[in-house]
Amino acid sequence: MAIVVQKYGGSSVADAEKIKNVARRAIAAQEKGKQVVVVVSAMGKTTDNLIKLAQQVTDEPDEREMDFLLSTGEIVSCSLLAMALKAMGHQAISLSGAQAGIKTDAVHSRARILGIEPRRITKELDRSKIVIVAGFQGVTDKMDITTLGRGGSDTTAVALAIALGAEICEIYTDVDGVYTADPRLVPEARWLKEIGYEEMLEMASLGSKVMHSRAVELGELYKMPILVASSFSNNPGTLIHGGASMEAGNKVRGIAHDLNVAKVTIVGVPDKPGIASKIFDSLAKASISVDTIVQNASINKVTDLTFTVAKTDLNKAMRVIEPVVKAVKASECVSDTKLAKVSIVGAGMQSASGYAARMFKALSEEGINIELITTSEIKITCIIDESKVTDAIRALHKAFELEKGV
Amino acid sequence: MAIVVQKYGGSSVADAEKIKNVARRAIAAQEKGKQVVVVVSAMGKTTDNLIKLAQQVTDEPDEREMDFLLSTGEIVSCSLLAMALKAMGHQAISLSGAQAGIKTDAVHSRARILGIEPRRITKELDRSKIVIVAGFQGVTDKMDITTLGRGGSDTTAVALAIALGAEICEIYTDVDGVYTADPRLVPEARWLKEIGYEEMLEMASLGSKVMHSRAVELGELYKMPILVASSFSNNPGTLIHGGASMEAGNKVRGIAHDLNVAKVTIVGVPDKPGIASKIFDSLAKASISVDTIVQNASINKVTDLTFTVAKTDLNKAMRVIEPVVKAVKASECVSDTKLAKVSIVGAGMQSASGYAARMFKALSEEGINIELITTSEIKITCIIDESKVTDAIRALHKAFELEKGV
Repeated sequence: MAIVVQKYGGSSVADAEKIKNVARRAIAAQEKGKQVVVVVSAMGKTTDNLIKLAQQVTDEPDEREMDFLLSTGEIVSCSLLAMALKAMGHQAISLSGAQAGIKTDAVHSRARILGIEPRRITKELDRSKIVIVAGFQGVTDKMDITTLGRGGSDTTAVALAIALGAEICEIYTDVDGVYTADPRLVPEARWLKEIGYEEMLEMASLGSKVMHSRAVELGELYKMPILVASSFSNNPGTLIHGGASMEAGNKVRGIAHDLNVAKVTIVGVPDKPGIASKIFDSLAKASISVDTIVQNASINKVTDLTFTVAKTDLNKAMRVIEPVVKAVKASECVSDTKLAKVSIVGAGMQSASGYAARMFKALSEEGINIELITTSEIKITCIIDESKVTDAIRALHKAFELEKGV
Repeated sequence: MAIVVQKYGGSSVADAEKIKNVARRAIAAQEKGKQVVVVVSAMGKTTDNLIKLAQQVTDEPDEREMDFLLSTGEIVSCSLLAMALKAMGHQAISLSGAQAGIKTDAVHSRARILGIEPRRITKELDRSKIVIVAGFQGVTDKMDITTLGRGGSDTTAVALAIALGAEICEIYTDVDGVYTADPRLVPEARWLKEIGYEEMLEMASLGSKVMHSRAVELGELYKMPILVASSFSNNPGTLIHGGASMEAGNKVRGIAHDLNVAKVTIVGVPDKPGIASKIFDSLAKASISVDTIVQNASINKVTDLTFTVAKTDLNKAMRVIEPVVKAVKASECVSDTKLAKVSIVGAGMQSASGYAARMFKALSEEGINIELITTSEIKITCIIDESKVTDAIRALHKAFELEKGV
């Protein structure tokens, strides 16, 4: 019998009524002849409230204990969902990450799944039960509880789908799927029926509201089809898969944007080998992700080095860099937080010319200045003034005619 | 190195400040050269709130899922306590019932401990850690989470003390120990330095506010000394043990009372063999504890049968009895809920005569009518009118000179 893994986020299980709604959706899937595994996040603001509680006890909660504390949030929602299903007359059982056989490394607060031993799940499925699994958590070989970090429940769902040989992993959330741009900013944004894994990854900043990139990467690696849809409607959602049908037509699939951008410029860096590596090494050691990097042409053996980090990482980044700036005898380090990223995303853009030029033209016609540019195989990103981001998205959406279907 | 097991109830860990207070107490015990295991209940009203949440989902929550849900309450408090200890610079680790090796049967909501495999605890103790264990919970051989029912955390603490060969099990709560009577009703009630297991069990209705009888029974079985004390003061508390020092002096140790009493009288029961057993069988099958039983002398082969149950069980008891009353052709069944139990408790009372007579005289001098009488080896209980309970306790406290020390 085909297995379906469904995942419901915190807003989909925020109260008793919503939990009953999820129960009805799981039953509907079972009644279509599927074996159903449901992965749930913690209810609504539960995780935030637990974090607040820990902060009342100490400013720097121990990570092992924090994982143990946070893991209770998903236990609450999964046991309530199992109760709802049983009260509706259906067989169900809830399992913690440990009981579900989700084995991780011991890196607390951001553990990686090492493997899944799904015997308990398959046994319960074979007894016609709907199996509810607590998302976001796992267990080490010493039986300590871990959490998977951001997007953890999505990762649990995709990993379980792979381990169980499911036919699909369905991610239910509070949006209808993936759009060509954020529909709140661009009213004419068009719903996408399907999207490739890579494109979905590049839409991450847009997609992060939909689904975490880590789970998409895992899906891509094992070619697991992922459906992103709303738990509050019966709209069909967006299928993320690796099929070839997306190659045709418009190469630009959507416009992504990100307001969590800060720019750091180190002024007057001596142009000697090894200096950039010193700077980025120290940032990497502090677990700060650096995005765009631009180095100006060297004048008199002195250059400016500019890069972007998440705005939320800026203070930490400045602290880390300060001693390095002194050590390498750069003149100063300045930052700018009033910035945003806007990207056009589409597989095969690189192989067709002219996309970058069309992007820059569209922005320039809106009077938008481009601070930095960066490109990947399937994405062109411009860093612009934060206040212009909505104008930029609308202009690009229009320039690439995204309101029209393929 | 000697091991001490400390247990802190819900009111002792009700907020972040109280959790820090518990952390300081555990550290103080460690600094006295002990290996310290701390068992905690859920914070304040957590368990009640989880039950409310379940009731929003369904009127009759599945017991397995309810256990899983409720087990999160103790995980929250024990992980927070471990964080507090680590933030204070001490080594600590929190463990769920499952991680602590507390194995139970699969009778959800009232599981019995089958055994404890304390390897993980002893390993962590040997690493100089303070080990925090979630009370009230265990795990079946199938890795399902169970809860131990009422008084569960006390039972966890005493069972762990026994399994670890601890020198003492300390139960910290919001009262200063055991008194000769409820100090809120009898201002001259005297604190007891020590009490025997059996006496403590008979003081259960008084003691239930202090400690659950099930844990006392376990302590008695394995001769584990139990100290009951306040977590909010440094008062010495009451030591529950099996020593002989209590045999001397006043045989009455204290006055217990219980307002949770309902009387049921089945009128006109045919006086034939097997009828009483039918009635009490049906109550036992419904898990209703029957306390005092009195059968009037038979007149014309018809008798009245009276017994008491907890007031909270009355409706259920009446439902269960109704068909039996019809089946045995008794004439009717009536109940009375305006009753209370008052008991004098003391080991060795039976072997010294005159206690019952003194009790009845003291009550009669206060004009208190005795509805029913029942005795055990170390207790004499009278069922009286609910409105007279304070008068009765004060009169008995005075009659047996309990305000005077031994």
